[in-house]
Amino acid sequence: MLHVVIMAGGSGTRFWPQSRRALPKQFLCFGSERTLLQETVDRCRDFVPAERTWIVTGAVHADETARQVPEIPSTNVLIEPCGRNTAPCIGLAAMRLLATDPDAVMLVMPADHVIRPVSEFQRTVEQATAIIAQDPAALVLFGVVPTYPATGFGYIQRGEALTNSSGFRVAAFREKPDVATATQYLASQEFFWNCGLFVWRADTILEQLKRHTPEITTRLKRLQAVIGTEQWPATLATEFPQMPSVSIDYAVLEKANSVAVVPATFDWDDVGSWQALARLLPADADGNTISGRFCGVNSIGCIVRSSDKHLIATYGVSDLIIVQTPDATLVADKRDENSLRQLIAELERSGLSDFL
Amino acid sequence: MLHVVIMAGGSGTRFWPQSRRALPKQFLCFGSERTLLQETVDRCRDFVPAERTWIVTGAVHADETARQVPEIPSTNVLIEPCGRNTAPCIGLAAMRLLATDPDAVMLVMPADHVIRPVSEFQRTVEQATAIIAQDPAALVLFGVVPTYPATGFGYIQRGEALTNSSGFRVAAFREKPDVATATQYLASQEFFWNCGLFVWRADTILEQLKRHTPEITTRLKRLQAVIGTEQWPATLATEFPQMPSVSIDYAVLEKANSVAVVPATFDWDDVGSWQALARLLPADADGNTISGRFCGVNSIGCIVRSSDKHLIATYGVSDLIIVQTPDATLVADKRDENSLRQLIAELERSGLSDFL
Repeated sequence: MLHVVIMAGGSGTRFWPQSRRALPKQFLCFGSERTLLQETVDRCRDFVPAERTWIVTGAVHADETARQVPEIPSTNVLIEPCGRNTAPCIGLAAMRLLATDPDAVMLVMPADHVIRPVSEFQRTVEQATAIIAQDPAALVLFGVVPTYPATGFGYIQRGEALTNSSGFRVAAFREKPDVATATQYLASQEFFWNCGLFVWRADTILEQLKRHTPEITTRLKRLQAVIGTEQWPATLATEFPQMPSVSIDYAVLEKANSVAVVPATFDWDDVGSWQALARLLPADADGNTISGRFCGVNSIGCIVRSSDKHLIATYGVSDLIIVQTPDATLVADKRDENSLRQLIAELERSGLSDFL
Repeated sequence: MLHVVIMAGGSGTRFWPQSRRALPKQFLCFGSERTLLQETVDRCRDFVPAERTWIVTGAVHADETARQVPEIPSTNVLIEPCGRNTAPCIGLAAMRLLATDPDAVMLVMPADHVIRPVSEFQRTVEQATAIIAQDPAALVLFGVVPTYPATGFGYIQRGEALTNSSGFRVAAFREKPDVATATQYLASQEFFWNCGLFVWRADTILEQLKRHTPEITTRLKRLQAVIGTEQWPATLATEFPQMPSVSIDYAVLEKANSVAVVPATFDWDDVGSWQALARLLPADADGNTISGRFCGVNSIGCIVRSSDKHLIATYGVSDLIIVQTPDATLVADKRDENSLRQLIAELERSGLSDFL
């Protein structure tokens, strides 16, 4: 049976001041009245029921997760005592799923991406599950067709086409490239962006983890032994933090043989920074992307976001990010993709980490 | 006896969003814990007691005025039913003063200028009163020595020097000039900025008003007849709004003969726009003028102002005005001196006048 595993462990401040350590991006709305987490759950509702939808999240985010998606049974929310990257997260989910469904197929998705439309997403998922039906050992990735020479994503190089499928064998994984390399990738039409969505059988990924990262599997087995018992919380608190913090890409995918990629026919955005809003939301006549109350004179190309009924008013400005929240406001150069990290560090250094 | 008349009728939005129609500039603090109105009262405290300090303000601002300067007797606060510019305001005050002191000398000051230091201010006032002691018919202005070719002020051209005084006869008044003319004025060393501070006898200015603007005097006489009676409020409400809305400069000063100017030895700023803060407050190492909590990365030359404990954070920006208030935030180009007016108009047009 198909299960959905939503990885909601994000804790970043890339949408500061709106995202905070206690309220990361998956809990926020971007051009929708539903949060990214809610949209991620909604996306699968038509083909996977709530009982087969699983969420892995951090201890500090468990309450907000339960509040936002009350339809997911509380037993389906797995709590990571701490973040250990995607390999332990996926291993934990796979082990837990197998306890209820020995034939579980897992659709693994981050909780904080925008994917549209749902119909195309569902179509791509069906193509992935069809590959797994043919080859239970397959590890299937979704590949997004590049539209520009992005340097912020990993790339998947396709190999030979699979029979009876729109998918391909994966020839190679490539780290985030420089612009020149990304431009070559784009021109070659052989590369996809690795968007971090996967489909595989739970037993397959556990078998692969055992082969390539046995130090994770050893600890997962200790957890498996106490599922549904009173010892679960203590064992989890002991074992999970000792797992190596490693991505599933590095732990398994780059080393495994039977990795396939299915071209995504949906639109995908990882909502990686404030700049994403200009892609995701419509702009006004002056190219401003607005959420909330705004009045601008001679103001162009800005991304403006305010809380509640707060008014943001501007004149004579261009290409700014302006984000107002009740206790902090960001005003920044939209074209500067990298300085937010520096600002966050400066806030910590200045004793302002209460705002993070 | 010397009286102080503080004109606190300002109702502008030049410091929007901090100044509002209900809370104009004189009620705000700029680099001090005292508001401009409080500082204006404080400035004269050493040489004029509260009983001889008078405030003329608008009906909507009477409560805030009383709250901010409780030391001024409530009978000394004169309420304009509506704004009619400075000639009716000064005429009303002169008429009221004469009823308590037939020899009243009036020091007239706007409530919303910054003047420092108090000692030099007092010295200039003494020079003005000395001229009036010699010539009771004198109308004395304070002239600020220009430091740059300002186009936003009226100019006073000095004539012959007065004997036994640092003052001069006024040769001519000049409207706000263009830059070329202002540059000539500056070079000639014959011109002062007209800063809107005056000293004269109450009976003298009433006599001059009678000669040059009798339609004001006629109505003032009807008010004079009801001072201290129950009819005062109704008579004021009837007569005051019918006075012509005209400045004392236009109504009297430009037409009178015995006008003198005393060079101001104090520093003066009319705090005419947000840009004034960069003059009045110290800047940080990056040239940012900050009031409130701020954290900036690669941010230079900005004027930043936040309310309460709100944090404003920036990166990659320069020469911005950023003003946060609980319900509205302004982000604007510091170098654009004129667009705030356009923004205010746009707010009204957009149905956002509740924010004004």
